[in-house]
Amino acid sequence: MSDYDFSQFSCPLPKTDYQTIQMAHGAGGRLSADLIEKVFMPVFENSTLKQLEDQATLRFAGQPLAFSTDSFVVSPIFFPGGNIGELAINGTVNDLCMCGAVPQVLSVGFIIEEGLPIADLHQILLSMRRAMDQAGVKIVTGDTKVVNKGSCDKIFINTTGIGIIPDGVKISAHGIQPGDKIILSGTIADHGMAIMSVREGLSFETTIQSDTASLHQMVAEMLNVSKEIRAMRDPTRGGLATSLNELAQASGVGIEIIEDRIPIREEVHAACEILGIDPLYVANEGKLIAFVPSDIAESVLRVIRQNPLGKEAEIIGEAVKKHPGKVVMKNIYGVDRIIDMPVGEQLPRIC
Amino acid sequence: MSDYDFSQFSCPLPKTDYQTIQMAHGAGGRLSADLIEKVFMPVFENSTLKQLEDQATLRFAGQPLAFSTDSFVVSPIFFPGGNIGELAINGTVNDLCMCGAVPQVLSVGFIIEEGLPIADLHQILLSMRRAMDQAGVKIVTGDTKVVNKGSCDKIFINTTGIGIIPDGVKISAHGIQPGDKIILSGTIADHGMAIMSVREGLSFETTIQSDTASLHQMVAEMLNVSKEIRAMRDPTRGGLATSLNELAQASGVGIEIIEDRIPIREEVHAACEILGIDPLYVANEGKLIAFVPSDIAESVLRVIRQNPLGKEAEIIGEAVKKHPGKVVMKNIYGVDRIIDMPVGEQLPRIC
Repeated sequence: MSDYDFSQFSCPLPKTDYQTIQMAHGAGGRLSADLIEKVFMPVFENSTLKQLEDQATLRFAGQPLAFSTDSFVVSPIFFPGGNIGELAINGTVNDLCMCGAVPQVLSVGFIIEEGLPIADLHQILLSMRRAMDQAGVKIVTGDTKVVNKGSCDKIFINTTGIGIIPDGVKISAHGIQPGDKIILSGTIADHGMAIMSVREGLSFETTIQSDTASLHQMVAEMLNVSKEIRAMRDPTRGGLATSLNELAQASGVGIEIIEDRIPIREEVHAACEILGIDPLYVANEGKLIAFVPSDIAESVLRVIRQNPLGKEAEIIGEAVKKHPGKVVMKNIYGVDRIIDMPVGEQLPRIC
Repeated sequence: MSDYDFSQFSCPLPKTDYQTIQMAHGAGGRLSADLIEKVFMPVFENSTLKQLEDQATLRFAGQPLAFSTDSFVVSPIFFPGGNIGELAINGTVNDLCMCGAVPQVLSVGFIIEEGLPIADLHQILLSMRRAMDQAGVKIVTGDTKVVNKGSCDKIFINTTGIGIIPDGVKISAHGIQPGDKIILSGTIADHGMAIMSVREGLSFETTIQSDTASLHQMVAEMLNVSKEIRAMRDPTRGGLATSLNELAQASGVGIEIIEDRIPIREEVHAACEILGIDPLYVANEGKLIAFVPSDIAESVLRVIRQNPLGKEAEIIGEAVKKHPGKVVMKNIYGVDRIIDMPVGEQLPRIC
């Protein structure tokens, strides 16, 4: 081994606010961003990774491809409206879709705790298969590890996907222009509150269901109307507030949203009130936000609403020149409130 | 959601020997094969996955690509000769190389236990970066999850990679012909016994070091000599014995190896004796086996030996017509012994 010229790359131990990993480092908020910026980036630094998109854009033989990975550690693994299996498929499919790519293939990596009932595993696999059929993707390669009891929590699933980016599509977190309208494809906070309700044993007249779903069809329909979509995100971990903050910062625009326009189910709103959680920060798993030039906003909104997953879509605000990098929400009394990036997590292990 | 025509795919709960996941299901032996065949395959079934290669071969815009995933759960995360970080890079790089692909990009998914020292994470990242520089690959997209203390064991890492398969290269587990020679690139069982020695607190005159290394350069040099390499594997989990059994079964040939020709370090041999472990079944992380037509075997062996990682390479046997699907080892007294697929694990969480 000593004959090899091993790279001598080094960089100093970063100065961080904490000396150990905190739950908040994985919550998608400010501490997550800190970990990425101070600990990961100086070591892994390269031009593709620096884009901080939810997927990398690659090019092989002239063909632009999207490449995205996600690990799923949700607890409990079965919840109203879904389980960790379909979440793992839909999550990576949606990350690919958010740059306009058509998802093609997935890899899957299972880490399973000794003692997991085969019947539970089977049910998870069936949900994965149904979600894949739905999204038109296949698992083409995989890996399974088993760890001793107590070394993981039932099952963790990594999915990594490749999608084809159609000609002429250029969707990026960096592409938003002042004046662009913001479309939200439906109600917020369903997934996160479905998980929290189970954990806290809350019950409402209607059970809160996760919104886990694949958005590939909706995105295809949107791109059919216009390829001029500037940016898209699926507001998962950290919710709508975090995604909007990330996009405002990446594009250097301000964002204004109108509270009254943001759709939310009554029972989800009630659960948030009881638990003291702001729904703007709660994960969604079947919703997207799209920034589009104002002249096409109405026609894009129309096709989204025609999709069964987008019936409650709304234009919730716009990108503005003032307060670049900041998100401001107006309430019905005309009062402005800054919607900040969350520091830590309200809801651990939501996906 | 009910408007969507969700696929109704179903298949019955498989009959398996165990009702819950056993450590042996993750050990790469017969129970692993069982889990894949009976539980995963009937649900995920598709023609690419069915090949049971260590990587999928895809084609985008006419360009053949290799796609491979691996999760790493090794314990301890730091061990003589390496850590989980470089293992995660080298492991996926090697899986890509084994079909002749030139590794290009990786994704990485971290699952980190609350409380992991940032200094440990930093050291792991530095090792990953050095291994990537070495192998000429980059991480272009990633994901980080944090789970509460006790819900995972320090850190798990998934890496998924894409490589370019050069024109004219067709290496496959199914391509072996009777008469092909088997080249092993160096000593066996170093990685597994490095881990076991630490766990068991064994000490020898020389510390047993993991052989974790990227084989991309060796493979490039081999393909430079001839593109007629039929099959390659990196004998990781389950060791040389498991890889040979898988290849014998995939190609429908018999395999004969000569015990005396299999290189093994003295201290590794001693550790195996003490722990009662057969080195044929112990994981390697920087070795390959190659099946090549007999007329090019010597020239391929020569370039392998010129590589610093292949100095101890040997021709250890050949593929034969008799006993298809079976591996037989001859000892120095001319006695034959069937080298079977292991049922379960000797060594859990080795990678």
